[in-house]
Amino acid sequence: MVDVAIIGATGYGGIELIRLLDTHPLVRLSYLTTETYVGERVCDVYPHLTHIELPLEKLDPTAVARCDFALVAIPAGLSMELVPGFLDAGVRVIDISPDFRLRDPLVYKHWYSLEHTSADLLQQAVFGVPELHREAIKAADLVAAAGCYSTSALLSLAPLIADKLIDTTDIIVDGKTGLSGAGRTSLKLPFHFPEADEDTSAYAVGGHRHVAEMVQELAELAGGDRVTITFTPHLVPMSRGILTTSYVSPRDGIDTAALYDCFAAHYADEPFVHFLPQNTWPHTKWTAGTNHCFLAADIDEPSGRAIIVSAIDNLCKGYAGQMVQCLNLMIDADETTGLSMPAVYP
Amino acid sequence: MVDVAIIGATGYGGIELIRLLDTHPLVRLSYLTTETYVGERVCDVYPHLTHIELPLEKLDPTAVARCDFALVAIPAGLSMELVPGFLDAGVRVIDISPDFRLRDPLVYKHWYSLEHTSADLLQQAVFGVPELHREAIKAADLVAAAGCYSTSALLSLAPLIADKLIDTTDIIVDGKTGLSGAGRTSLKLPFHFPEADEDTSAYAVGGHRHVAEMVQELAELAGGDRVTITFTPHLVPMSRGILTTSYVSPRDGIDTAALYDCFAAHYADEPFVHFLPQNTWPHTKWTAGTNHCFLAADIDEPSGRAIIVSAIDNLCKGYAGQMVQCLNLMIDADETTGLSMPAVYP
Amino acid sequence: MVDVAIIGATGYGGIELIRLLDTHPLVRLSYLTTETYVGERVCDVYPHLTHIELPLEKLDPTAVARCDFALVAIPAGLSMELVPGFLDAGVRVIDISPDFRLRDPLVYKHWYSLEHTSADLLQQAVFGVPELHREAIKAADLVAAAGCYSTSALLSLAPLIADKLIDTTDIIVDGKTGLSGAGRTSLKLPFHFPEADEDTSAYAVGGHRHVAEMVQELAELAGGDRVTITFTPHLVPMSRGILTTSYVSPRDGIDTAALYDCFAAHYADEPFVHFLPQNTWPHTKWTAGTNHCFLAADIDEPSGRAIIVSAIDNLCKGYAGQMVQCLNLMIDADETTGLSMPAVYP
Amino acid sequence: MVDVAIIGATGYGGIELIRLLDTHPLVRLSYLTTETYVGERVCDVYPHLTHIELPLEKLDPTAVARCDFALVAIPAGLSMELVPGFLDAGVRVIDISPDFRLRDPLVYKHWYSLEHTSADLLQQAVFGVPELHREAIKAADLVAAAGCYSTSALLSLAPLIADKLIDTTDIIVDGKTGLSGAGRTSLKLPFHFPEADEDTSAYAVGGHRHVAEMVQELAELAGGDRVTITFTPHLVPMSRGILTTSYVSPRDGIDTAALYDCFAAHYADEPFVHFLPQNTWPHTKWTAGTNHCFLAADIDEPSGRAIIVSAIDNLCKGYAGQMVQCLNLMIDADETTGLSMPAVYP
Repeated sequence: MVDVAIIGATGYGGIELIRLLDTHPLVRLSYLTTETYVGERVCDVYPHLTHIELPLEKLDPTAVARCDFALVAIPAGLSMELVPGFLDAGVRVIDISPDFRLRDPLVYKHWYSLEHTSADLLQQAVFGVPELHREAIKAADLVAAAGCYSTSALLSLAPLIADKLIDTTDIIVDGKTGLSGAGRTSLKLPFHFPEADEDTSAYAVGGHRHVAEMVQELAELAGGDRVTITFTPHLVPMSRGILTTSYVSPRDGIDTAALYDCFAAHYADEPFVHFLPQNTWPHTKWTAGTNHCFLAADIDEPSGRAIIVSAIDNLCKGYAGQMVQCLNLMIDADETTGLSMPAVYP
Repeated sequence: MVDVAIIGATGYGGIELIRLLDTHPLVRLSYLTTETYVGERVCDVYPHLTHIELPLEKLDPTAVARCDFALVAIPAGLSMELVPGFLDAGVRVIDISPDFRLRDPLVYKHWYSLEHTSADLLQQAVFGVPELHREAIKAADLVAAAGCYSTSALLSLAPLIADKLIDTTDIIVDGKTGLSGAGRTSLKLPFHFPEADEDTSAYAVGGHRHVAEMVQELAELAGGDRVTITFTPHLVPMSRGILTTSYVSPRDGIDTAALYDCFAAHYADEPFVHFLPQNTWPHTKWTAGTNHCFLAADIDEPSGRAIIVSAIDNLCKGYAGQMVQCLNLMIDADETTGLSMPAVYP
Repeated sequence: MVDVAIIGATGYGGIELIRLLDTHPLVRLSYLTTETYVGERVCDVYPHLTHIELPLEKLDPTAVARCDFALVAIPAGLSMELVPGFLDAGVRVIDISPDFRLRDPLVYKHWYSLEHTSADLLQQAVFGVPELHREAIKAADLVAAAGCYSTSALLSLAPLIADKLIDTTDIIVDGKTGLSGAGRTSLKLPFHFPEADEDTSAYAVGGHRHVAEMVQELAELAGGDRVTITFTPHLVPMSRGILTTSYVSPRDGIDTAALYDCFAAHYADEPFVHFLPQNTWPHTKWTAGTNHCFLAADIDEPSGRAIIVSAIDNLCKGYAGQMVQCLNLMIDADETTGLSMPAVYP
Repeated sequence: MVDVAIIGATGYGGIELIRLLDTHPLVRLSYLTTETYVGERVCDVYPHLTHIELPLEKLDPTAVARCDFALVAIPAGLSMELVPGFLDAGVRVIDISPDFRLRDPLVYKHWYSLEHTSADLLQQAVFGVPELHREAIKAADLVAAAGCYSTSALLSLAPLIADKLIDTTDIIVDGKTGLSGAGRTSLKLPFHFPEADEDTSAYAVGGHRHVAEMVQELAELAGGDRVTITFTPHLVPMSRGILTTSYVSPRDGIDTAALYDCFAAHYADEPFVHFLPQNTWPHTKWTAGTNHCFLAADIDEPSGRAIIVSAIDNLCKGYAGQMVQCLNLMIDADETTGLSMPAVYP
């Protein structure tokens, strides 16, 4: 049993962590922090978590220090202030903020308009997508879990780039997300039900921050080739789920069979990534509440472009589930521990 | 470990049973039947159940006979043809069809327009709401699991009637359901997305079949007093969830405190029924994917009426979860086995 | 042509007024006020109103004084401060706030926790449901347009009470509303998309303010009989639409035919109220964007209760459409002017 | 006044035509045909169209011949059988089926697997997007109104290709549609509410029929340059609305300013196409029930790609509204007649 602290336990990501860890056989939820609900219990804030009477406390680093793991679910900028102290106290950290995802502090500053105050940790932080960095995660003290869009896009593109099947400078990712990604703390007009209901729209066109981590991770796989990605996220009227549709240019001679062989080979042993048979395309609904990713691909005639569609649950494989998957690796447990439930469908 | 057959495994209720039983530590899913998908596997019909490769077979009573339990999820009229054979073969049955819920075959005929062909079993069948019939369920060979609306209404009304706090002839139940209750097999216009989306409507006004089982069960508790219920169901645009709002007349001298004491006493030890503190009202979203029921009540000034609001997941506590809860009782397991996951929220 | 000011033009009710009046042949939109967007144009705040370049101004009573009508769409408490000045300046007023709906200032104080500062106007204000007060509205200088729930409930109950068909002390109204009724200005957690989506819940149980105006109006029709109403509103996951389900006790000898005759007689000539044939029940979707109300009724066997279901668009017949209908009456125009478009369906 | 027949009046497109034409000042709805509801009236099939008592009749060509216009809203393959007869009888035709959109009968056969039986009419049919073919539509006897996706994509791309600003062989269109596009007649599982609700998915990947008409129309503007388009449509959980996100490669030296100037110049005088200021991106909700198209564009750094986002109502500008806009042109009326209502928002 490991003792786990959740730093930022009352947002949607925080309670998704609680949902997954509450019944995890190897984890003891030992310490939950909150900014907003100090002194209340989880079940006070979320009445449906009726049996989870754990107290919510104001962050106290000495209490974190008594834990084996800190799962950090707080905004960009705050995480980099706290994580060094956790590590110094011997606590292993899985951070879902973007603070330790980008290895270059200048890139971080460009996208987040913040000077990085713990840049020395960036080289040791491991980017938290197990399908890309499984061995490094096992040994890591600091895992920077990937963003939701990035996870979906990287799982769609990494095999093709690793196997040099596509042009790395001609990549388009069109993302569609449900609104739980907006979180619970900040109530903004675009997430007001009457505005978002029955609506689809693009946002952050030409400038969503997740593109930086996509590029970093794919560039590493591309072995020196330049990577450029055009990424456009969209809001669609649902709570959970991300679908990314990626458009790429296969290199000469790469046909559908090659595409299939590539995905099949890379994901044959992955417990959470499922490459679908031809003409079956993923649905976000298939992933609701689970850590699974469903992937499909084909080549469009006559443009010759390859299209890869990927579906995940943005709060699970795109957030808390991925953190738990990393945690399982870090404690040498079966990777699927606590993550084996099927989707709540329909 | 018990061997379980699911008769009618590919509807929404069937796959909810599979979702719950797939990880149930005391159950082996041994035999799944289907009318529509004979020869396919579960994962072929529902690609998101990627790891459930169990075959779907045409019903063969001899195969059922090799199981300990048959969970029957097929339409009214079909169930009463099959269940006697299962019982004769020594298989214990939990049936979610209405065929064995009503003890009086004439009442059954009135509501379902069918002559009952196994009326001899009606007296031995136990109505499957554990909160009402726990001990009888444990010993039963045939459990007739309650309907979704009935479960929500009965949990709202049974304590008040058992304790003689209300007028049993003045009961109104206004129900609101998501559309997964419509099932998956029959595609009808009212369930077509463009029709149901952004719409609320009443249906089966003055004549929904579930009223018969509500009356039967409450009359039993009323000890001879006549019970009449006005029940109006409504469709609201969501997939899962039932909310019932019940309006009753407290007897003279019954105030809010008495109401509270009654619910608190009846549900203090119930693992799945949660009576909420005053001014907190249940949300269907709190129950998504779970076997929980959230209940709240208050007395309306100045009409003096008591209002009880109850929320369940129609496919779980209102269907498959209730069946599993009954199964747990029947095998002397902890009642919550396999049912302890919190809601997928939001 | 009359000159119309909209006081509070940028909420959902305000832009619904703009939508309806923009093409109204007898109205000139002369003056629009805002608290939040002073100096902007309508099309700046709502880009989809691309052709409506009218300026939004900080409220200036002298500018209102130059108009023939003020349509007031601001919160309770503010309206009673402003309306007397408008009237003094010779401007006729249609107010959608509750400030002038209740004739008794003590009742107002009870429900709104505010001392009424213009109580002298309460007797001259006409309650703005044309189906109840058509002639008085025509002559009025101050119309207090009814609330959304009240409109739906009153249209369901008024004929039955006027004709003395039901027990006036035994009335239950169960309401279901879409979330546009929450307005646009105040962003609260229950209206945050991930919270409200896929959810149904009751709120303000035993204490919604609209019950006061329902009682007042029905008591007037009841000719001295006491009226009590139990009213429970619910949120359902859609933007527009209100459905009320009313439960009443018919007096002895009143059967379905009497019920039908009553509604048919009362609404035969009403342009916006449509009493449906037996076994056809209204859908909120039928009313989207229109001023129509669809009504149906039946008697439930064996409880003997009558059930009346009514659907309106909460922002139209429950808000802006009703105001325009009143305006049409006040300028002696055809009551349907500017209100004849069918629903946008589906 | 012109006499108009609607051939196929009871689908979602048919009743959208009725909604728009019912109050059109220059049109008399003279003849409505149906396959399914012969002998009923519009208000019987759609109770919300309470005042539209027009009879629905089995198609009789001699009755059509008495009209000035036939608006044809029937499936591919049926239209080409009927339209020649209408034209021979002197009736002008606006057809929303794909039968007369593609000028090359072999291309038609490729995509629709049907031999074209009226290929002689293909050269005289005018493709019905007024923004592209305004003058030709005015004079046409046969207008083949464009598909919903095509309209959105063509309005996004035509100006850029006409002005030679982009590479015509590097075009990606990612479309998102509400489910009303699925029609009402065919009830299929993907459109069943519990399946489609809370889900996003791609479909017809690499093979949606609308790509053929996009290519045809853009190739005509491209003046001999080859055009290739990768088009992927997606279902998102809403009733109305299409959003297309187009990705193109600007030619050397083409910057954001050039892009803006191009759209501004092409759409300055268009009553229904609105090019938005930088950093404002269209929402499908802005178009609900209207004939408007909202467009925005920008260049993504550092990929250098241009992104164009366009929103329309699939049943209005993508179907019935476009037909009415064409009709207005054909009768020399103001193009916006009957189409000036703002969106029903929210």
